[in-house]
Amino acid sequence: MSLLIVGTTALDSIKTPHQENPRLLGGSASHAAIAASFFAPAQLMGVVGDDFPSEYTALYEKHGIDLSGLERSKGNTFHWEGEYEVNMNNRRTLETDLGVIEHWMPSVPSSLAESQYVLLANCAPQLQHHVLKQLKSPQFVVADTMDLWLNIARQELEALLKEVDCLVLNDSEARQLMEEDNLVVATQEMHRFGPRYIIVKKGEHGAILSGPKGLFVAPAFPLKTVIDPTGAGDSFVGGMLGYLAEKGGDIESHLRQAIIHGSVTASFCCEGFGVTTTTQTTRQDIDQRVRELVDLVSF
Amino acid sequence: MSLLIVGTTALDSIKTPHQENPRLLGGSASHAAIAASFFAPAQLMGVVGDDFPSEYTALYEKHGIDLSGLERSKGNTFHWEGEYEVNMNNRRTLETDLGVIEHWMPSVPSSLAESQYVLLANCAPQLQHHVLKQLKSPQFVVADTMDLWLNIARQELEALLKEVDCLVLNDSEARQLMEEDNLVVATQEMHRFGPRYIIVKKGEHGAILSGPKGLFVAPAFPLKTVIDPTGAGDSFVGGMLGYLAEKGGDIESHLRQAIIHGSVTASFCCEGFGVTTTTQTTRQDIDQRVRELVDLVSF
Repeated sequence: MSLLIVGTTALDSIKTPHQENPRLLGGSASHAAIAASFFAPAQLMGVVGDDFPSEYTALYEKHGIDLSGLERSKGNTFHWEGEYEVNMNNRRTLETDLGVIEHWMPSVPSSLAESQYVLLANCAPQLQHHVLKQLKSPQFVVADTMDLWLNIARQELEALLKEVDCLVLNDSEARQLMEEDNLVVATQEMHRFGPRYIIVKKGEHGAILSGPKGLFVAPAFPLKTVIDPTGAGDSFVGGMLGYLAEKGGDIESHLRQAIIHGSVTASFCCEGFGVTTTTQTTRQDIDQRVRELVDLVSF
Repeated sequence: MSLLIVGTTALDSIKTPHQENPRLLGGSASHAAIAASFFAPAQLMGVVGDDFPSEYTALYEKHGIDLSGLERSKGNTFHWEGEYEVNMNNRRTLETDLGVIEHWMPSVPSSLAESQYVLLANCAPQLQHHVLKQLKSPQFVVADTMDLWLNIARQELEALLKEVDCLVLNDSEARQLMEEDNLVVATQEMHRFGPRYIIVKKGEHGAILSGPKGLFVAPAFPLKTVIDPTGAGDSFVGGMLGYLAEKGGDIESHLRQAIIHGSVTASFCCEGFGVTTTTQTTRQDIDQRVRELVDLVSF
């Protein structure tokens, strides 16, 4: 099934107490498309500047990602600079240069307009909505978001949510959006914005799905080494939607397994800077870790 | 199989933004023994003062708890006064009166010295050790602890840990004890203190077990209402050990199910102040919620 991923394509400079990693391939769409590519051919929509390294284009191509929706513009690629504290849980943004993404309002190429599985990866809700409106007959649309948009584009986000099948956000964002500390209640109450499915990411604690058939409490793969969690949430949704696109048919029958596969794909992302570990991973590695996870959680 | 639980028997005065609940039945041994009683007859060792209400003794008896190890002393029952903030996650101690527990160093009655399953519920490590030394041939010994003892009785705790089969503590305590932020690493490294099994409680996120056969990642039952989490950790270990005592035989074959049953028993504890909801629960309620949990986590 055709799978379209739209979002940010970026250069990330990530500092940790021990290392500096300048200008890694990053962005929500990059992480998500690479994660999705293990399961189904992914089409990427994004924009990069004339400073975008050709080896990163080659990396997308290595993963079989369709780049007909990747625009090249005059100017700088979106650049994010951030720093993690010792425990890798707290990160702060040092600098953001929006570059060519600031005024990007793309036309969807006709080759992509028929896409059936659509991930509106984390980016401005007005951009997500702009792309969604141009699609002909999407079958399953997932929107990922973050606290920034809850703070500065709440109306645009709410308008978007009326038209998507699934909203994905993290636990602190869910609590913030619903002004509700109980995560189960917050998760279930988010349906009133429109989406049939709500998925709340809890990082190392897994995820919660709320859908027409109730809740699913999903585990995360327990990691002994977390090098860089940047992009883990994007890898999660990318892997999840990739799995759904691979399976096709009824969403409900595959969604729990899709969440597990997304979660495991995200675990590889955390084990290296940027996409470095993810791009060395194979579908066999993912399937093996899913089997290990089954053993770790069964009772 | 005979099951002995030693720990604090207390009166808890618990304030929340909406309610004050003075002098509820509390204490680690009270919560644990009531939780255990759904699975196996529990023997309680504790001490209360002459202010201990007779209806609380009746409550123990309603649960078939053997009180031959419950001492009555002149003085006040251990009294803890605490306050929860709006989100129920942060609590602070307003006042503690140790009362008769301060100098309690009991002799184990001969009727209890042969106990096979032993829970050293949360209390001073020197008290836990003092009781353990008097037991004849305990088959499976679990010690629960808390941050207070890591801070003021570290040596006594380490001495105790050489002689127990299973250590239980919560996630922040595990990180503190091991000076390690990664919880999987911290959990596995705790074996060097002695215990064959390490269980780390993660509250609403479940628990992790590390044992000879590796890790088990256990879910928690997702609760929409958390009234008072006081005693949930004690209910967890009590329910877990009660289940093991009920099953008997090889610990390894039952431990995962025991953790699930302990976790579900603890979920009832959170739904009311003190033991109020737990004492209205039945074994059928617990089994029903275990079945619901199986559905919530299966994929």
